[in-house]
Amino acid sequence: MARVEAIKAVERSLRVVEERERVVRAWAHLNPDRARAEAVEADRRGGGPLRGLVLGVKDIFDTSDQPTECGTAIFAGRRPRADASAVALLRAAGAVCLGKTVTSELAFFHPGPTTNPHRATHTPGGSSMGSAAAVACGMADIALGTQTAASVIRPASYCGVYGFKPTFGNVSIAGVKPFAPSLDTVGWFARTPELLDLVRVCLTGRPPMTPLASPPRIGVLRTEQWRESAPETRAAVTDLAGRLRTAGAPVCDVAQPDFLDALADDHPIVMAYEAARALAWEHRAHRDRLSPQLRDLLDSGKATDPREYDRARARRDVARTREAELFRDADVLITPAVAGEAPEGLASTGDPRFARLWTLLGLPSISIPVATGPTGLPVGVQLIARTGRDAALLATAVWAGL
Amino acid sequence: MARVEAIKAVERSLRVVEERERVVRAWAHLNPDRARAEAVEADRRGGGPLRGLVLGVKDIFDTSDQPTECGTAIFAGRRPRADASAVALLRAAGAVCLGKTVTSELAFFHPGPTTNPHRATHTPGGSSMGSAAAVACGMADIALGTQTAASVIRPASYCGVYGFKPTFGNVSIAGVKPFAPSLDTVGWFARTPELLDLVRVCLTGRPPMTPLASPPRIGVLRTEQWRESAPETRAAVTDLAGRLRTAGAPVCDVAQPDFLDALADDHPIVMAYEAARALAWEHRAHRDRLSPQLRDLLDSGKATDPREYDRARARRDVARTREAELFRDADVLITPAVAGEAPEGLASTGDPRFARLWTLLGLPSISIPVATGPTGLPVGVQLIARTGRDAALLATAVWAGL
Repeated sequence: MARVEAIKAVERSLRVVEERERVVRAWAHLNPDRARAEAVEADRRGGGPLRGLVLGVKDIFDTSDQPTECGTAIFAGRRPRADASAVALLRAAGAVCLGKTVTSELAFFHPGPTTNPHRATHTPGGSSMGSAAAVACGMADIALGTQTAASVIRPASYCGVYGFKPTFGNVSIAGVKPFAPSLDTVGWFARTPELLDLVRVCLTGRPPMTPLASPPRIGVLRTEQWRESAPETRAAVTDLAGRLRTAGAPVCDVAQPDFLDALADDHPIVMAYEAARALAWEHRAHRDRLSPQLRDLLDSGKATDPREYDRARARRDVARTREAELFRDADVLITPAVAGEAPEGLASTGDPRFARLWTLLGLPSISIPVATGPTGLPVGVQLIARTGRDAALLATAVWAGL
Repeated sequence: MARVEAIKAVERSLRVVEERERVVRAWAHLNPDRARAEAVEADRRGGGPLRGLVLGVKDIFDTSDQPTECGTAIFAGRRPRADASAVALLRAAGAVCLGKTVTSELAFFHPGPTTNPHRATHTPGGSSMGSAAAVACGMADIALGTQTAASVIRPASYCGVYGFKPTFGNVSIAGVKPFAPSLDTVGWFARTPELLDLVRVCLTGRPPMTPLASPPRIGVLRTEQWRESAPETRAAVTDLAGRLRTAGAPVCDVAQPDFLDALADDHPIVMAYEAARALAWEHRAHRDRLSPQLRDLLDSGKATDPREYDRARARRDVARTREAELFRDADVLITPAVAGEAPEGLASTGDPRFARLWTLLGLPSISIPVATGPTGLPVGVQLIARTGRDAALLATAVWAGL
């Protein structure tokens, strides 16, 4: 793929920043001169599969040359010594890091200042809000985020970009601020599934996706949240299923298996218990600097009976062994990514329930921007594949875009 | 349990430091005045289940008030902002952190300066070398370490202390420098199993162990390393089995199941692949400051075919589902912890093969100091229990000490 020089790409991004950032507020830290110097150096080195691509990095990934403040005053001015694994690997592949993108407080729910690039009075979703917004308006080509509940799938859907969460454990989380380690997953955003795949290859050393040999079997999964989703979401799922059928894919309905019913309530238990331990220092030493939402979560996690946590984990482990039942008739499931269009207001980042089940199960998932809601905001649809079928899922997203 | 004031405990530890540290070299960072101030503050606050206990912390755990250099010049002078989860939780429980203990380079094999407290010309084992040595000579009551291959079990055995590795995932690793995230496990050292259990309770919020209601069923497992172990190790295992039988425990031989044979070779594959990604920044930006050993490991991990890694992980996942077969006739397995006494010389930290299979499987394990080798150095024996049976394993160690 012929690509522009890194410095030209950075200048182009900086022009968009100049135009849009005052309203969008996607960046926690951005130093144009540092970014230009990195681009010049990347051009001097030459090569790399990500050459000429501008990268945004959620501000919970450590960076050796920029602050990493995790969306909280507790870490104001914090300067890590090393790059997080994902940052180092993407830079090694030729990407230039433009800066750090806004995260909600410690990647939980309390939002940062970012607005939805499609309408500034609406949330961009969270917690990877700056990364999704930066890609949506062309300030970055690719951007790193993380998902512990719905923090990639939801902002991707609200901002109208592709967002990908790989199989749990397939991408190193080293150098990323932990929240709930058995759930925390590195994910990323781009404007095409091809770019998502290129990033995956650089992060894992795995082969690139190959075009599907035959149309994928599609299963439409109406989870219990189906009834709670807005008409635009249900229409988006149904329309996409129709289009895929027209394109030749066998489409069936998949009923939510019993063993998934209980799991929906297990995610918050696992998250709270683990967060109370992972953030033990913040909880104790900086209680008064936490948002009430996060403080409540950590209090509740600290008080969680470990047996309740163990039971939730055990149900998850059982569900993982029964994954095949969910994919008996389908290679890929399609299901809502979010309740509907991005809600109005910036005080909340929206409802995480549509993605967290898949985070708990560790399955690869992608939000693809397929529809527009009644007020003109984007609506994504979530596609989910079996453990390890990350490349096939991305190839399906490519196929679905035809 | 009546305990001394923290300040008295710290002064007592500092006297041992004064006496022994010049030769043992267990500490990477130690500031007596800071430790005294922390003790005074702990006494002022009062209470806590770990009150009056002095804690050593392996120098790959972040500390908010002390450098964290990870045993490499790459991180010289590094000052984290926060305490790692385990440090915060133990401090909250009343422990006073005396300082940071020596780790081998980034918790891999290249040793730090620590010597074996029982004979300074011999290795204390690694990578948690300073923590094991500090506990062994009474400079600390409890000390944190980590195990990715054998880094708790081996130094515990060489230094003649108890070392415990909990079930994978049961103790938060947040704030610890990652090496191979699907293997990295927080562990700790103490001079009694009762103290080990107290630490476990503080780190997990789980109930304390209870005395065994009946003697445990013991299985003697002679792995393929049995033939490669020294006579003192085989004697230690056999003698302990005999003593437990005399004390009333049903003792049987357990054959190593077939599905474990391949696994022994899978650990290094998983470790190298994951380390090359977790340490991507160090590998690229500081290649010339890595030891040749670590550089070779990262080179080999970077070149590892991801399919080979996936196959190793898949075999591990299968083995985990077959765990029950290993414990059909036994509640607890006993097996060598190390090849034999601590080898002479400080250039190597010894053979990790006796523990790494159990790290790969994520099972709780403990090294108990039960014997003395032909030259008078300690020899430990390793006890292993099923996933989640951490409290029962520690209760067995208590029972075995009777």
